[in-house]
Amino acid sequence: MGLTSTAFAQDAPDLPKDFGKGRSVVVLGAGIAGLVAAYELERAGFSVTVVEARDRVGGRNWTIRGGDHVDTLERPTQTAAFSPGLYFNAGPARLPSHHQGVLSYAKALNVPLEVEVNSSRSSLLQSDAAFGGRPIQQRQAINDLRGGLSELLAKATRGGGLDQELTGSDKERLLAFLKSYGDLDAGGAYRGSERSGYVTAPGAADQRGVARSPLALRELLSDETLPYALFEENILMQATMLEPAGGMDAIPKALAKALKGPLLLGAEVTAFRQSPQVTEVAIRDRRSGASRKLTADYLVVTVPLSILAKVANDLPGEVQAAIAGARYDNATKVAFDAPRFWEAEQIYGGLSFVGGETTLVWYPSGGFHQPRGLLVGAYTVGAAARTFQARSFDEQVALTRAAIDKLHPGKGRELSAPLVIDWNRQAFNLGPWIHWEGDGNDPAAYRLLNQPQGRIFLSGAHLSQLPSWQEGGVAAARRTVGLVAQRVRSDRLTLSRTETRP
Amino acid sequence: MGLTSTAFAQDAPDLPKDFGKGRSVVVLGAGIAGLVAAYELERAGFSVTVVEARDRVGGRNWTIRGGDHVDTLERPTQTAAFSPGLYFNAGPARLPSHHQGVLSYAKALNVPLEVEVNSSRSSLLQSDAAFGGRPIQQRQAINDLRGGLSELLAKATRGGGLDQELTGSDKERLLAFLKSYGDLDAGGAYRGSERSGYVTAPGAADQRGVARSPLALRELLSDETLPYALFEENILMQATMLEPAGGMDAIPKALAKALKGPLLLGAEVTAFRQSPQVTEVAIRDRRSGASRKLTADYLVVTVPLSILAKVANDLPGEVQAAIAGARYDNATKVAFDAPRFWEAEQIYGGLSFVGGETTLVWYPSGGFHQPRGLLVGAYTVGAAARTFQARSFDEQVALTRAAIDKLHPGKGRELSAPLVIDWNRQAFNLGPWIHWEGDGNDPAAYRLLNQPQGRIFLSGAHLSQLPSWQEGGVAAARRTVGLVAQRVRSDRLTLSRTETRP
Repeated sequence: MGLTSTAFAQDAPDLPKDFGKGRSVVVLGAGIAGLVAAYELERAGFSVTVVEARDRVGGRNWTIRGGDHVDTLERPTQTAAFSPGLYFNAGPARLPSHHQGVLSYAKALNVPLEVEVNSSRSSLLQSDAAFGGRPIQQRQAINDLRGGLSELLAKATRGGGLDQELTGSDKERLLAFLKSYGDLDAGGAYRGSERSGYVTAPGAADQRGVARSPLALRELLSDETLPYALFEENILMQATMLEPAGGMDAIPKALAKALKGPLLLGAEVTAFRQSPQVTEVAIRDRRSGASRKLTADYLVVTVPLSILAKVANDLPGEVQAAIAGARYDNATKVAFDAPRFWEAEQIYGGLSFVGGETTLVWYPSGGFHQPRGLLVGAYTVGAAARTFQARSFDEQVALTRAAIDKLHPGKGRELSAPLVIDWNRQAFNLGPWIHWEGDGNDPAAYRLLNQPQGRIFLSGAHLSQLPSWQEGGVAAARRTVGLVAQRVRSDRLTLSRTETRP
Repeated sequence: MGLTSTAFAQDAPDLPKDFGKGRSVVVLGAGIAGLVAAYELERAGFSVTVVEARDRVGGRNWTIRGGDHVDTLERPTQTAAFSPGLYFNAGPARLPSHHQGVLSYAKALNVPLEVEVNSSRSSLLQSDAAFGGRPIQQRQAINDLRGGLSELLAKATRGGGLDQELTGSDKERLLAFLKSYGDLDAGGAYRGSERSGYVTAPGAADQRGVARSPLALRELLSDETLPYALFEENILMQATMLEPAGGMDAIPKALAKALKGPLLLGAEVTAFRQSPQVTEVAIRDRRSGASRKLTADYLVVTVPLSILAKVANDLPGEVQAAIAGARYDNATKVAFDAPRFWEAEQIYGGLSFVGGETTLVWYPSGGFHQPRGLLVGAYTVGAAARTFQARSFDEQVALTRAAIDKLHPGKGRELSAPLVIDWNRQAFNLGPWIHWEGDGNDPAAYRLLNQPQGRIFLSGAHLSQLPSWQEGGVAAARRTVGLVAQRVRSDRLTLSRTETRP
């Protein structure tokens, strides 16, 4: 298809079934990258062992349910107290429809998908710096903005301000279009639109719809921390977004189930090294404390760089320095169990933006009209997250509750079972993702770490163009499998040359 | 809630449980309006009998599954040959989140809802009159349009064309905003954006995303029949849209199940009249041909005006003339059973627009990654539908198949089990809805028909501000129940005056 053939991320490796026969690989890390690497290597006939420090697969892909324990460095241990049936995607929680890599595994492994509502015109904006602090429906902000911009452009067009750019017929066409696009009146003015919502909804007989009065453009542009005009056109946020039914962890669970080789959970890597012939990994069982060694022809390392920096290894000094120098972003989510008060405000999924440290509120995309739902009350990254994470959990929960209460007055007290996920204090992450072109990182380090190191291959979403998306992990893993295959071919060539030498 | 208190359609009647005790009502028509009227009347203690000519409830709310027969006037009878599990919402197929009337019944009656994907950035536009006939992803059209408009407005702002409208700081703020909004370069030009989709998607290592080249504004404005820039901001089309899981008919079925009184299916009304004391309805059993009479204190008539015009009655002449004069719009849908080829193009739900007689293609919002799906290949209304409906079913199917093939080259032949629903040739509809302010209709007739006629009350979506939406039926029915209650009170007053007269 001309439309889509080039729109894929790194393609799945296309290797013969027995390509890797007789060759072994150890994969460190059972996040998406590690699981995909293992899955594809096994499909190509390699013998694969996966090593994972946690007691679960998925890595950042982590779905938390009632009864689950959450350990956090420097903070109290939490136990999720969500109602039965509710779940919290603490890491990734949405799949863009163009992320065909990760979606291909959901399809191949029969993981049922449902729609993730990423944008809803009924969800809200609230900021103390705009609209007098009142919560505003996004349908109003988005459409009053469009009306205001259209009115300005129509004025400029009629006034001759664009005569250098537009022919007479262009202008005519544009003005007719702007009238529809902005819902302008016959004179080209924007005086409000039912697109922005009703004061009175249309009903029976003579109950006509009455539109809200419009918000002024100046007010709509007053608070840059409310990304209502930008969010849904971000290519990563555009509808249709998807999610696995029942929790994002359905994907890593399905990948893990499809593996044939050993998957060692609770096994922490303490060291690895290589010789010209083999790679060697030292692991420690976290429960028993017992240590053991694994050897394999090749080693794929998908653990976060923040963790890898603490693992003894014989990688070249410049590689070790690149690992140690990587600086991660910050991210925290806060979740509550709540009665579905937002549905009484016609909100069915989507995100409300609140600015400030807690940034947004994310409503569940399913379970409509059920008694309770899982509300993500805060999802904060970057500088806001750094400030937020410095607080105690109690403070973080109180701030989140207060932000929700400003959006939904009186409802803050109805939130129960708070749970905070601080990705920078998760022992096996120490950060959510790396932005290589920011945060003081060195893009040269990214390039270096993407090079194979003999029999050792670093991989993971952090070595892709999509470090904060599962698709990045898939792309990196697929590329790594290709690099391993390249190495196998070159090893074979060497061997065959050796063998044919007289 | 200040945000929503006035945003509801006609509220549900709030009558005491025994208000209608000892009073009887016959409701003609078991579409949404008739069922809601019956449900609410029973909740208020009335004895209700519902009369429905079809063998099913729902009226225009009609979900068709494999094996169902479809009779059409002047056209061959069809039998749906869809695969098991597939269903076709031949009438209403989406519920806006602000239609809190119809949603309240889904909630009260535990009808599970899921998201209806009304807009998808991956769905397409195709027109022989634009883009050289090529299918274009909506993400490209929408975002290149935004880029082009932003560039123009930025130029006009910088050039002084808006100095009468904007202060210096307004201009500065606006220019900064337009740069983000339109994804403009540092010089204020739009040179394409990854928002519009990739030629190369971002992948692993050095595989950077490469955005498509932008489409010119002139081309984007060249074909008015492609409503990509307007559709999703229509208040009736804004996300979040919902649908009942398994078919829209779950709503009328749940309402019918909740009724206590008789529901007579296959019972055609042949006449009705009233005396000062009572109303009388003649019905004919369509299977046996047997006739009978029903009497009741009040009569609620929700059947379409096009049908009502053929029923003998004693309504005043001007009311009969208003009924006879109503002119309905036209609407047809064409559905296919198909392998989910659109998912390989990253389309998960949403609508593609094709202009022309067939107008659009509507992809299923669920069942992702299943082998087959129900594809609505055409949904046409107004003048386009009139032209389309004049053709034979074979021609309609061929046209629809060809339109889909232009969107998805080579896929037209993969479509099977075509089914055409011509709402103007459905014997108990003879049209989909009335636009009272168009099609030569008389708004005065609308006002007249909304008046109670003694003990007889006309009702239905056609007597609301939302004639083509279920919410209109709900609003009309709720108002009608209020009018019946008013009449009961006035009857009681008369009676009590009579009784106390010496």
